Amino acid sequence: MKVGYLGPKNSFTFQAANELFEENNLVSFASIPLTIEHLENKSIDLAVVPIENSLEGSVHATVDYLFGQTAITVQEEIILPIRQQLLGLEEVKQPQKILSHPQALAQTKQYLKTYYPEVSLEAVSSTTFAAQYVATHPENKLLAIASEKAAREYNLKVVASDIQDNAANQTRFWVLALDKNRQITRNTQDKKVTLFITLPANLPGALHQVLSAFAWRKIDLAKIESRPLKTNLGEYFFVIDVVLKENEILIENAVKEIELLQAKVQRVGTYSINRFT
Amino acid sequence: MKVGYLGPKNSFTFQAANELFEENNLVSFASIPLTIEHLENKSIDLAVVPIENSLEGSVHATVDYLFGQTAITVQEEIILPIRQQLLGLEEVKQPQKILSHPQALAQTKQYLKTYYPEVSLEAVSSTTFAAQYVATHPENKLLAIASEKAAREYNLKVVASDIQDNAANQTRFWVLALDKNRQITRNTQDKKVTLFITLPANLPGALHQVLSAFAWRKIDLAKIESRPLKTNLGEYFFVIDVVLKENEILIENAVKEIELLQAKVQRVGTYSINRFT
Repeated sequence: MKVGYLGPKNSFTFQAANELFEENNLVSFASIPLTIEHLENKSIDLAVVPIENSLEGSVHATVDYLFGQTAITVQEEIILPIRQQLLGLEEVKQPQKILSHPQALAQTKQYLKTYYPEVSLEAVSSTTFAAQYVATHPENKLLAIASEKAAREYNLKVVASDIQDNAANQTRFWVLALDKNRQITRNTQDKKVTLFITLPANLPGALHQVLSAFAWRKIDLAKIESRPLKTNLGEYFFVIDVVLKENEILIENAVKEIELLQAKVQRVGTYSINRFT
Repeated sequence: MKVGYLGPKNSFTFQAANELFEENNLVSFASIPLTIEHLENKSIDLAVVPIENSLEGSVHATVDYLFGQTAITVQEEIILPIRQQLLGLEEVKQPQKILSHPQALAQTKQYLKTYYPEVSLEAVSSTTFAAQYVATHPENKLLAIASEKAAREYNLKVVASDIQDNAANQTRFWVLALDKNRQITRNTQDKKVTLFITLPANLPGALHQVLSAFAWRKIDLAKIESRPLKTNLGEYFFVIDVVLKENEILIENAVKEIELLQAKVQRVGTYSINRFT
């Protein structure tokens, strides 16, 4: 079995994928669209991509790619705490630059502002690349923000550990497949259903009606979010995550009712939540 | 009067600001947080920043900065069509690289995939920087994606015009001020109210109740969006844009009712919409 993931090796997506799959099944890709494209042309069996971070919000590249792609479904969700480490060849008091991926820089903004207010930050393509670059440029007095795994891989010291601004920083990842009946579920306790809903016409009444269909059935929503339809300013679709208990038939009834209201509903997946610490 | 904006000169935010204010009042800043910080410490009177693009969605840097900053209010909204031009010193059949800001690269993704599938794309800090770099590096066979103004400023040829993927590509900008009573409104027809709403407890019932307060009063919502509270995964606040007609008192009643439900409501602004073509 081949499992594609948003690389490079030792990225947070790699760590997430490695929680469910053996390392020798994993294949790295350079971007989220590339990873999912390889799933679509069947050169891989599963794709692991990030979907949401607790600080930065949704990963739009994933949400926007999946919108309208009805052949792909979510098989599993993986929730991983994101810990960022400040790495260097040695403890540098006044580094010339600090390198990392833009999301890692965003997740450590307060820390960097407090301890390195004058140091210029450089956005690079991945946290792994940042660690590798620092390891191979000893003359430059650089630091990188990356994972503990990257520190071990490139023989870097952890200059400061767990520097993420929020202790509860977590990222959700999705395991995607083409085969709707594939089951790799390990966790049967904690399940969700994700729906993309496009409303027929004007927002206020329609969204209220959609939420009513869930509310009066006492169906819990874990999340509701809007994304632009990329048509005109002010036109959106909605990402709705529904908590699945012993109410699967109620959820299906709610969805049918919503479809009767002329809304389009894309069933993105019914999946288990796998939490790691 | 000093009006700060997200620069550099000739950026799309510059163009938006320049629709309402004289060029010699405009002061450029390098980032959205920096622009708003200068408003807060009163070194500028107004700040112009992007808030949403019709393809890319909300500008999180703006939304997240304003959340909780109750001293700042939105005075005006500016809506501008975003046209992207492919610029070069000459028509290069096989450019070595195409440079632009990440958002401009995202907005021309389909065009680049069709016409330049093999060319590497380089993300730089602004479209203006991309144009300037191309103009000053004739030996490198580069192209830039930037505005017509940038083409004129740096004497570049428009190799292909209006290459944005969507003809209806528009961006909303906000004019921010500290003084709630300041009035620079030119357009009195087309008005909105923006609210940031933090729900008291569990999402499903509470959000449905909030929307009910608007729905039964037949108040139109132009937008509803969630952003992470940056506490735990799954905790959000909501950005709600309300269409203001002759119903200001109804909106205020709805807000009061929502506050009685223990939701926190931040009144981000009541403002006119200024559309340009």
